[in-house]
Amino acid sequence: MSLNDEALQAIKTELLDELGKDAPNTALFAERLSEIRSADIGEILEDLIEEDDALAEALALLDVLSTERAANVLGYLPGESQLEVIGNLPDTYALKLLEEMGSDERADLFNLLDEDRREALLRRMAHREREDLKRLASYEEGTAGAIMTSDYVAIASGMTVSQAMMRVRQTAPDAETVYQLYVLDSEGQLIGTMSLRQLMVARPGALVDNIMIKDVISTPVDKEQEDVAKIVARYDLLALPVIDADSRLVGIVTHDDAMDVAESEATEDFHKGMSIGQLEDGVSRVPLWTLYRKRVTWLVLLVFANLFSGAGIAYFEDTIAAQVALVFFLPLLIGSGGNAGAQAATLMVRGMATGDVGVKDWGKLLGRELLVAGSLGITMAIAVAPIGVMRGGEAVAMVVALSMVTIVLFGSLLGMCLPFVLERFRVDPATASAPLVTTLIDASGVVIYFSIATALLTSV
Amino acid sequence: MSLNDEALQAIKTELLDELGKDAPNTALFAERLSEIRSADIGEILEDLIEEDDALAEALALLDVLSTERAANVLGYLPGESQLEVIGNLPDTYALKLLEEMGSDERADLFNLLDEDRREALLRRMAHREREDLKRLASYEEGTAGAIMTSDYVAIASGMTVSQAMMRVRQTAPDAETVYQLYVLDSEGQLIGTMSLRQLMVARPGALVDNIMIKDVISTPVDKEQEDVAKIVARYDLLALPVIDADSRLVGIVTHDDAMDVAESEATEDFHKGMSIGQLEDGVSRVPLWTLYRKRVTWLVLLVFANLFSGAGIAYFEDTIAAQVALVFFLPLLIGSGGNAGAQAATLMVRGMATGDVGVKDWGKLLGRELLVAGSLGITMAIAVAPIGVMRGGEAVAMVVALSMVTIVLFGSLLGMCLPFVLERFRVDPATASAPLVTTLIDASGVVIYFSIATALLTSV
Repeated sequence: MSLNDEALQAIKTELLDELGKDAPNTALFAERLSEIRSADIGEILEDLIEEDDALAEALALLDVLSTERAANVLGYLPGESQLEVIGNLPDTYALKLLEEMGSDERADLFNLLDEDRREALLRRMAHREREDLKRLASYEEGTAGAIMTSDYVAIASGMTVSQAMMRVRQTAPDAETVYQLYVLDSEGQLIGTMSLRQLMVARPGALVDNIMIKDVISTPVDKEQEDVAKIVARYDLLALPVIDADSRLVGIVTHDDAMDVAESEATEDFHKGMSIGQLEDGVSRVPLWTLYRKRVTWLVLLVFANLFSGAGIAYFEDTIAAQVALVFFLPLLIGSGGNAGAQAATLMVRGMATGDVGVKDWGKLLGRELLVAGSLGITMAIAVAPIGVMRGGEAVAMVVALSMVTIVLFGSLLGMCLPFVLERFRVDPATASAPLVTTLIDASGVVIYFSIATALLTSV
Repeated sequence: MSLNDEALQAIKTELLDELGKDAPNTALFAERLSEIRSADIGEILEDLIEEDDALAEALALLDVLSTERAANVLGYLPGESQLEVIGNLPDTYALKLLEEMGSDERADLFNLLDEDRREALLRRMAHREREDLKRLASYEEGTAGAIMTSDYVAIASGMTVSQAMMRVRQTAPDAETVYQLYVLDSEGQLIGTMSLRQLMVARPGALVDNIMIKDVISTPVDKEQEDVAKIVARYDLLALPVIDADSRLVGIVTHDDAMDVAESEATEDFHKGMSIGQLEDGVSRVPLWTLYRKRVTWLVLLVFANLFSGAGIAYFEDTIAAQVALVFFLPLLIGSGGNAGAQAATLMVRGMATGDVGVKDWGKLLGRELLVAGSLGITMAIAVAPIGVMRGGEAVAMVVALSMVTIVLFGSLLGMCLPFVLERFRVDPATASAPLVTTLIDASGVVIYFSIATALLTSV
């Protein structure tokens, strides 16, 4: 079973009660903590640090755990909290924790430390570790290099199966995964891969070179993490090897990290879809000032974009003054167009993100949208027509119904095409957000509605 | 390296050219196909079946592959296409393919077959296989049972490490993963788990019962697939064991299937976020009629919801008639409120989906939203005020600025709270879609704007 929030809260309270006592019983601590997963302890710590900012208690809990477990738990905390913990630990213990952490997490945390602390810790590290850490920490955020780990099992070309097995047994404790092995030549270039499963069923005397898969799926170290996650998902990989310009193996991205990337990329797209900039942390934790900045930019831009709607209205002021009843249907019409358009845009943006839709499908999809949006428009026109009659008579009903079809159709096509246009100009299609699309449709809707009204009502 | 679209298209064309010839060189086929991954062949087939509907060619390609490979490739096709293929194959070959497929994929495909075919195939199956298939096919769509596989490695309690190793070697070819092992008692109840890694470093004579992890993370067979994916992600699992009511092991959900579920659940939420119903297939493939149905429901509902905006306008008709200039700012104000509200709603909905936000955080988040939305409203009011002066003098500017702050603040709080209210009443928070939120805010915005206008302008 896995723990739910209630269970976690219960354990947390119990631990805090114990901590409250003059002589807390650390044995009990150790026992309770040994019963739950590192991920869950991580959540408890995160609560303590973020919600209750009871850092001291958090550290006390961490202190009860073995260094290895503590490092594990630390790995589950968001960067900011990791920083707080490490920031309040003596170098020696901090160092121990860092050494036990996965090399990828270690590098991420390291990048958050301030210059002095970094230097202080580096000085105390073994040369090899220091170099590895510096290297991992040097890769750009959001690339394969930034999410890969260097804890993989490398097999030297020319080894026998039994030698490889030995190697696996030796590295088992440290490696992130021992289930996918990578064969390197003398230059450290990746020339093959094999699963532990293959190795186990192979003849002990056989050469790994003869049983390895030679055409390896790998990715360059500067590949965007979003694409890395896609490759892992597409080929159902346990881990994806990462190579440098000389096709030397520099690390692997494991399936669990790929899954985390996929989730955070999806979250980013959700936010982009509402014109919210990228948030480094959860909405409940990110600083208010950041949240404001990430939301305000587009909102203000769209205020000015909205002026086009105003301009349109100003242009038709006489028509409106003559038939104030028309205003009754304004929000309804532009709102409906905006909704249909936002739907069309989202279908395309998500389709592109999942690889279900490509630029080459544009023509086909346009045709489909024409049919669907047309039917939608007609349906909605039929729904609104009777109200038109009630409010302003048949002439107005005619205007409203006609406008509905036109606006919904136009809005849907606009929303559907925008992502492709953006993609064409190398802009992230997700920029075709609901707010942007609806604002554009508001303006066009105003013009369409009042043009039709002017034409029909003045001719009537 | 992994193939990009161009590379795939090139190979596809080459293969089609060859197929076009009177005496296609199947040897060349086999060679070219042996060079690319099953996932990629799957994509080529999918193209042939869906885009070009060249089913014959698709079958010809499949025919070149070994049954095992063919089954693999088939697994990468969407259900509808799998059906087309199987539907056009003789029972004997279809049966071979089904047998080679993963038990979970087999069950899914089986559920798509029509009654007669199902019976025909079942009759030709070995008893054990038939029962297993019937069982897997019986679980409800969208639950753990529907995505799990029964190809796992089970170890009997009481076995020694070396016996377990032997068992692993035997099952290696068939099992989805041999890297996580499950220890069962005589009743078939899951009493422990261990990784192959643990097994490899353990003493051959040791009893598995002494090295296994006793507190196993597992999930009931009727658990929603979305939650299953979350557990796999949270605990970085290779596979999650699925148990029945008597805690007997009935299957496992592997990390790659969990990742697929996470992606399709995210897509579903993207669509829900725009009031689009759940699509069984990609937007480029789903039937037009379905696409229409999934989009029209909410669109029409919202047309009527939009009448409230109209009603509001009707109520203030005199104010409007007296000051037609006010209409100029109507789309701008309600649009801005809608955008801010949609942002707030999306931040909450996604936060809940990723587990970053819980109902318990409501109070804290409300406070945060008050501050952020307030600042946003003031910023946008400052942006719009000058235009107010230009269009209708200082009085109008005052009305517009005041309305902007109120509408943005109110809209944001509405958008932020709605998901919590829905959650409270056991409705999917994602129902708080941008279209719904903006429509609600349109109506309230109209009332707020014209109330302020009536108050200030008549008193002026």
